[in-house]
Amino acid sequence: MAGKFVSMRNLKFMIYEVFDAVALTKSDYYRQHNQKALDMVLDASMKLAQKKLNPLFEEMDRKAPYLEDGQVKVHPQVRPILKEFGEGGWIGATFPEAWDGQQIPSLVYCACQVIKCSSNYSAGAYMGLTSGAARLIHSFASDDLKETYLPNMMAGKWQGTMALTEPQAGSSLSDITTTATPTDKGYYLLKGQKVFISAGDHDGVDNVVHMLLARIEGAPPGVKGISLFLVPKLRVEGKGKLVPNDVAVSQVFHKMGYRGTPITELSFGDKDDCRCFLVGKPHQGLMYMFQMMNEARIGVGLGAAAIASAAYYAALEYCKSRPQGRKLGQKDPLTPQVPIIEHADVRRMLLFQRAIAQGSEGLLMQCALYEDFLHTTPKAEHERWELLLDLLTPVAKSYPSEMGILATSQAVQCLGGYGYCEDFPVEQHFRDCRIHAIHEGTTGIQGMDLLGRKVIMKEGKALKYYLEEARATIAQARDLTGLKPLAEKLEAALATLEKTTMQLAGLAMTKGAEVFLADATLYLEYFGIIAIAWQWLKQAIAAQQALDSTAKAADHNFYQGKIITARYFFAYELPKIKGLMDRLLDGDPLTVEMQSGHFSD
Amino acid sequence: MAGKFVSMRNLKFMIYEVFDAVALTKSDYYRQHNQKALDMVLDASMKLAQKKLNPLFEEMDRKAPYLEDGQVKVHPQVRPILKEFGEGGWIGATFPEAWDGQQIPSLVYCACQVIKCSSNYSAGAYMGLTSGAARLIHSFASDDLKETYLPNMMAGKWQGTMALTEPQAGSSLSDITTTATPTDKGYYLLKGQKVFISAGDHDGVDNVVHMLLARIEGAPPGVKGISLFLVPKLRVEGKGKLVPNDVAVSQVFHKMGYRGTPITELSFGDKDDCRCFLVGKPHQGLMYMFQMMNEARIGVGLGAAAIASAAYYAALEYCKSRPQGRKLGQKDPLTPQVPIIEHADVRRMLLFQRAIAQGSEGLLMQCALYEDFLHTTPKAEHERWELLLDLLTPVAKSYPSEMGILATSQAVQCLGGYGYCEDFPVEQHFRDCRIHAIHEGTTGIQGMDLLGRKVIMKEGKALKYYLEEARATIAQARDLTGLKPLAEKLEAALATLEKTTMQLAGLAMTKGAEVFLADATLYLEYFGIIAIAWQWLKQAIAAQQALDSTAKAADHNFYQGKIITARYFFAYELPKIKGLMDRLLDGDPLTVEMQSGHFSD
Repeated sequence: MAGKFVSMRNLKFMIYEVFDAVALTKSDYYRQHNQKALDMVLDASMKLAQKKLNPLFEEMDRKAPYLEDGQVKVHPQVRPILKEFGEGGWIGATFPEAWDGQQIPSLVYCACQVIKCSSNYSAGAYMGLTSGAARLIHSFASDDLKETYLPNMMAGKWQGTMALTEPQAGSSLSDITTTATPTDKGYYLLKGQKVFISAGDHDGVDNVVHMLLARIEGAPPGVKGISLFLVPKLRVEGKGKLVPNDVAVSQVFHKMGYRGTPITELSFGDKDDCRCFLVGKPHQGLMYMFQMMNEARIGVGLGAAAIASAAYYAALEYCKSRPQGRKLGQKDPLTPQVPIIEHADVRRMLLFQRAIAQGSEGLLMQCALYEDFLHTTPKAEHERWELLLDLLTPVAKSYPSEMGILATSQAVQCLGGYGYCEDFPVEQHFRDCRIHAIHEGTTGIQGMDLLGRKVIMKEGKALKYYLEEARATIAQARDLTGLKPLAEKLEAALATLEKTTMQLAGLAMTKGAEVFLADATLYLEYFGIIAIAWQWLKQAIAAQQALDSTAKAADHNFYQGKIITARYFFAYELPKIKGLMDRLLDGDPLTVEMQSGHFSD
Repeated sequence: MAGKFVSMRNLKFMIYEVFDAVALTKSDYYRQHNQKALDMVLDASMKLAQKKLNPLFEEMDRKAPYLEDGQVKVHPQVRPILKEFGEGGWIGATFPEAWDGQQIPSLVYCACQVIKCSSNYSAGAYMGLTSGAARLIHSFASDDLKETYLPNMMAGKWQGTMALTEPQAGSSLSDITTTATPTDKGYYLLKGQKVFISAGDHDGVDNVVHMLLARIEGAPPGVKGISLFLVPKLRVEGKGKLVPNDVAVSQVFHKMGYRGTPITELSFGDKDDCRCFLVGKPHQGLMYMFQMMNEARIGVGLGAAAIASAAYYAALEYCKSRPQGRKLGQKDPLTPQVPIIEHADVRRMLLFQRAIAQGSEGLLMQCALYEDFLHTTPKAEHERWELLLDLLTPVAKSYPSEMGILATSQAVQCLGGYGYCEDFPVEQHFRDCRIHAIHEGTTGIQGMDLLGRKVIMKEGKALKYYLEEARATIAQARDLTGLKPLAEKLEAALATLEKTTMQLAGLAMTKGAEVFLADATLYLEYFGIIAIAWQWLKQAIAAQQALDSTAKAADHNFYQGKIITARYFFAYELPKIKGLMDRLLDGDPLTVEMQSGHFSD
């Protein structure tokens, strides 16, 4: 099924016309790039996705990983793909040159990741994990560890992972019990279990390097006693000799989707010979790990947006070519049937998918741009970008993940019975996409992070910056033909956001944390819808500016399509905040007050 | 995985306390039953589900049907199960005694079907199809056909199907081309293809009897030229000799879920020897078939509600037993973790699932009760029940189907990473449930049926009856402790429903059918939410009445749980109509006006 899974035209519109990637290359940090160079990076991504990743999309699902003699076996093409990720410089694409990275703007890399993940999410996931682990090592590990582990990771020969979750603790990191006992030999001895470790073991690499959270023996309880360790599957002894490090795979999970990447349960130190290496200072592990977690959360949102995008293009292709029925009012059965894209309800379903996928891409690129600003703007501005990133990370993780479930479901719906069958890719997208609301912090966790921490931190400073950013967009839109009604709707939504947030914060004072956060997930959804409306207004501005000026005739349809999708979002999606606000302001704490015993039958 | 999949306590509450099944047995038609007899029917269902169906739930998914030498092979246990359905009288459970049926109330049968389908939807589907086909034969076929085909169908030895869809026509029945050529031998010769035929062929039965739509050669084009035929896989010649009837299986589909039932593509008359038999009059086929279609649509809604219910109980069990984290405000990591049902957000997710599953069951039982009223009330009242059934059928089909996707998704979410894996049943429920918004008329088709036909037919008479029914419930609720606020919210919602419907009907006059029906799917969603609010008010009334009178202490929690779930629905779900109404009344026909070319990239 070599159908279209991504649109280069759309991605270039986003990074160049909406977010002005070329402006970044005027900065000192990104001066080695220009548009031509960035285009080449995009083209290389596309080539890799089309030639190597997408052809394996189905096969990696059908031939899922399995455990054999203690070794996880994955699709044989995983190895050459990971090698290519390494050789192509993708693993360190955004790393500074000082780390042997390509130092390309995060904004552009974000587009590259959309391309890869939309072609084959499972294949892209291996690389993201290695990249995140390598960044963590670069940032916090000793020179010795860097020298020993980074070269092979950057080359795609060794896999990186993040090993946080434990069977008895799940999302509750304060309850992890994996223990590291100090020795006098420069390492610790590790004992414990980790579960749901993505790419935790496989035969597509020669070694696996776990970035793992554990307690040093005698550490204080809770999150204050968690340290970060590097734990290799095979440890390096002497002159590069690889020795088994007492890391065992206890199971590989059989999943509904995302089947190309093995998810494992691992056992460390069954034979009391698992050596691990402290990264950074003791008991600071969670703080370090948040670097990788935040990166991974954005990565998860991106994966969801990319899958939703791929499903959208598959549905679009089908709807353009499948004849069925006639326009309403045309009752003569002898006239030819029309392609189903001619039916208003089908268009609505397509617009929904497009609005979710490309609106989410907008928010993710917005985050990437703030990341870039940390390199291109004066230090005095950095607090702004950091706070904006902190604030938007749970939204950029959750909105695409939750709405991706619905968007891929609508793609299935567009294909009718065929959508439910393996002959078309949409059913796999639907299965694949379902993981994202779960891994790297469930939607519930993200909601509490947003409402319980991010919007109230520093007396609401992050939220204040966010409102400023959104209002700057509104000001720009007010002057453009046709966009004023959208600008006004967004302004009204922002006003409710301020009011609702204030009222909820008041609840924290009067009724306590439990009532305050009971509907944090709904607040996250509400916040997310408004954030995506903001992004669609940005895209509409760029499209309208193009139409007002130099747009070529061939692109007229593209820009009109963008404006119509923005209108769709404001007409169909933004009104959903009304019901959410109703509930958020209602204040009946029924989920807190009810007894668990009321769930009796 | 022998977990709980259904609650008998809940079903008995529904049929006896909310809908008063015992009152039905006072009627002449159902006089042979009493509560004890009905309880026995329910118990027999439960026994069958627990002993035979549920144990195969996973296995029938993992070992999906396949095609071998032109024959579809299904799980070997399908045959004994179908035999048991036949011997137990289940296939004709609601048929009149004159048809050798059990003549049990549809209301009670509905509860039985919830039990069967929640234990193993795929297993239940075989029977529903045979039952619907048999009813069609009973209603419209000649005595000769009845004698030849019904006994083995009623015994569960022959499978019934409905064969409507064709590859080139999909939902557009007016475009079917399968052709029946008359002969002078009492039969027609059939030629054509049918696709997505559930249980269209399998080795769990000795024969398959298709109820098939085709055109008699020379018939008028469109739906006015469609006739209904009985087409056996093996035709009966002479004294019961079975002869191959030139029906070939061209493929069995590989589906995402609902894998225990084979979905087939069939080819009729490749060798010009497929004999078929006209049922009823020529060119009236669609009208006859609507009997089976409406029954199947209700059956689909029921299947979705049952799956959502099964997923809910699996999630509930997990949430009660899985310790993770602590109450907010309890920051001491040395205190024990609490079961996750203690977290407000988890309770919200459970209440959502319960509200969807049991609210949907309410609407389905309401329809079943109207069906029963056709047997128990004077003829003069029948128009009322028929119109209510007509009106509510698309809602009872679609609300559970669409919301079932979200409810099973929340069940997956409750289990976190485990929910995404095959170790627990919820991921299969999520996959299984996705079919329902597609088969027996997609949600888009149901929306057009509701808004374009049902609410406007007979000058809105069906809607008028519906409003009367709902307002009778409101009047009852106003007098009960605590239910007045819910009653008032429902009244407000009904007022908007009247207003919105009027305004949309006006649009039909001024702007034409295409604009009128552009958002019919949203209208269906909007209508559905209000209908389920009505049902929850009914359940709250029955629960409050129990609490106010004779309720035993042991059941206090159950009734309180019902009232809290009703409050949940009014607080969290009903407000969603605001955003929908906003859109429905907005009037910007962007999906009609936009060009398909705007989907350019």
